[in-house]
Amino acid sequence: MSGVLNKRQGRQSVLFDEPPYVKAAGNAAGKKEMEGPLGELFDYCDEDPYFGQNTWEKAESFLQEKALETALLKARLRSEDIGYLVAGDLLGQLIATSFGVEKFEIPFFGVYGACSTMGESMSLAAMMIEGGYADTAAALSSSHFASAEKQFRYPLDYGCQRPASATWTVTGSGCVILSKEECLLNNMSRALGANPVKVMGMTTGKIVDYGIKDSMNMGACMAAAAANVIEANLKDLNREPDHYDRIVTGDLGYVGADILKDMLNEKGINLNNHMDCGIEIYDNVRQDTHSGGSGCGCSALVLTAYLLPKLALGEFKRILFIPTGALLSPVSFNEGNTVPAIAHGIMIERC
Amino acid sequence: MSGVLNKRQGRQSVLFDEPPYVKAAGNAAGKKEMEGPLGELFDYCDEDPYFGQNTWEKAESFLQEKALETALLKARLRSEDIGYLVAGDLLGQLIATSFGVEKFEIPFFGVYGACSTMGESMSLAAMMIEGGYADTAAALSSSHFASAEKQFRYPLDYGCQRPASATWTVTGSGCVILSKEECLLNNMSRALGANPVKVMGMTTGKIVDYGIKDSMNMGACMAAAAANVIEANLKDLNREPDHYDRIVTGDLGYVGADILKDMLNEKGINLNNHMDCGIEIYDNVRQDTHSGGSGCGCSALVLTAYLLPKLALGEFKRILFIPTGALLSPVSFNEGNTVPAIAHGIMIERC
Repeated sequence: MSGVLNKRQGRQSVLFDEPPYVKAAGNAAGKKEMEGPLGELFDYCDEDPYFGQNTWEKAESFLQEKALETALLKARLRSEDIGYLVAGDLLGQLIATSFGVEKFEIPFFGVYGACSTMGESMSLAAMMIEGGYADTAAALSSSHFASAEKQFRYPLDYGCQRPASATWTVTGSGCVILSKEECLLNNMSRALGANPVKVMGMTTGKIVDYGIKDSMNMGACMAAAAANVIEANLKDLNREPDHYDRIVTGDLGYVGADILKDMLNEKGINLNNHMDCGIEIYDNVRQDTHSGGSGCGCSALVLTAYLLPKLALGEFKRILFIPTGALLSPVSFNEGNTVPAIAHGIMIERC
Repeated sequence: MSGVLNKRQGRQSVLFDEPPYVKAAGNAAGKKEMEGPLGELFDYCDEDPYFGQNTWEKAESFLQEKALETALLKARLRSEDIGYLVAGDLLGQLIATSFGVEKFEIPFFGVYGACSTMGESMSLAAMMIEGGYADTAAALSSSHFASAEKQFRYPLDYGCQRPASATWTVTGSGCVILSKEECLLNNMSRALGANPVKVMGMTTGKIVDYGIKDSMNMGACMAAAAANVIEANLKDLNREPDHYDRIVTGDLGYVGADILKDMLNEKGINLNNHMDCGIEIYDNVRQDTHSGGSGCGCSALVLTAYLLPKLALGEFKRILFIPTGALLSPVSFNEGNTVPAIAHGIMIERC
């Protein structure tokens, strides 16, 4: 009986009794992402950074619409078939999300976890299915370079110099549809070697404040949150890092990834199988993206376009996916506050 | 078995098999709220609108801290006993929440539903308990008049005139702790007539866009979302409005409440037992609050200070609690967009 049985493992982790399946994953990306190493994997791209809209915010809403639409298509579902939509973005009051998803008319939970939003939304969607509240639920997140710069930093026209520790906000959106019933990702074929992919459990982050105040070095702020989730996951479940083929953080970038490894080393945890979505998504030499990519769209794109297909097709058996978020606002930054961070870990496996 | 059994009723509603209990409710409020009709019911009040802090945002964080602390005290729990915290506020990137709750170190989900946040966070916390992911979970939200005016409208120093349809953002925060095990609210005594109070289920809102662009008339924007949830609840569960002792909306105010009744009348639904937290919290004649109160803190204060004790002590047997939120941001407003809205319904009963 649900409610009697407690699936909780340790302080921060949950293992599902009946892990939800990943039914489909859709995404939409911008020009720079299309020109990056994963470019050819994205479902929808456009050279126009406005995507035919008249504001940056509407452009981001358009990306969410496309990602959800594509995921529905691949799942062969209509929006009426989706029990819950859990979604968010980086903008104040989640306007990219509200305006992007309203036409789908799905019972909706808006979430904010900064760039950890894909992990947060997947955690909640997975609980909704396994808890018996819906047969199908969608998790969605997005970011847009220009709407994020406008929200958090300087007008683009200033042409501000970017320090080496800065990351480049990804223009993109990713959507994952989870299902109670066994299914193959994107209706791939077993005959072609695909196997079902499941969300086995999650390790939920706490807010971690490393005391950093530099909004141009978010990798450092978020590394402590990622370290907390990795440590909690291994401890709660009594696992070693190599239990996973890859431990994949969201958007630490080169600077944050190094800090993460140092932090874990100090705790006796050796991370030899680390991957960071912010490092994967751009070619930082050719594309001049400094520390790498960031934003809710970064881990969402890498998950939906690259990690999930690799799991379905057998290259990875098991990953720990940890989107990472820096909890700052222009107001908190201007008032001289630190940048606390959070991360949300999701365990994903091929059957 | 959870995951096999689907608790879903109709398109938007869920009835729990094992409804979580409300273990404790704590709150903190400002001077104007203290001077209102419910003033003597609040746990913590201060005449200083800054609550001893140096920014409006930190003042709001302080309110969240106090509400959560008080709820923990009443529940006789420590923060380590809380499985998940689900919380949010009105500010961009939820900074009142991040800085208010970080010291508690509870696995955390940040949510944004504008003024519907208390309903959204309670829905998620209830699912987490009934689904078997935690024995205890907390739902928390806040708003502050001055931080909200700064975020959404004009500097206070301008002394802008407020139209009659405007509501007054409540300075306050409310926290509810839900529990798997049977318990009495705030450790009240059965000998004094108290009975346990349960969250029976929920009706999750969709985003509803009524086409209104006036940020000074949010009652009208939100009325359509409240009507959607009430209609869905009655239809999904095949109930009449008088199934509930009260149908309680969040912060429609006088203007929005009239529109809600008209909208439902047109659909043949007669609302004779309607109550609105925004109308209850102030004396609009004496306190010059025009259409009433609003903000995440409005429904959170009325629920924690007034509705839950009334349920525990037997004056109400059963309520449908529907916080309502207007999904605008200063950016979406300045770009001339409409104000979409959402509402989240929670069914609460005395055993």
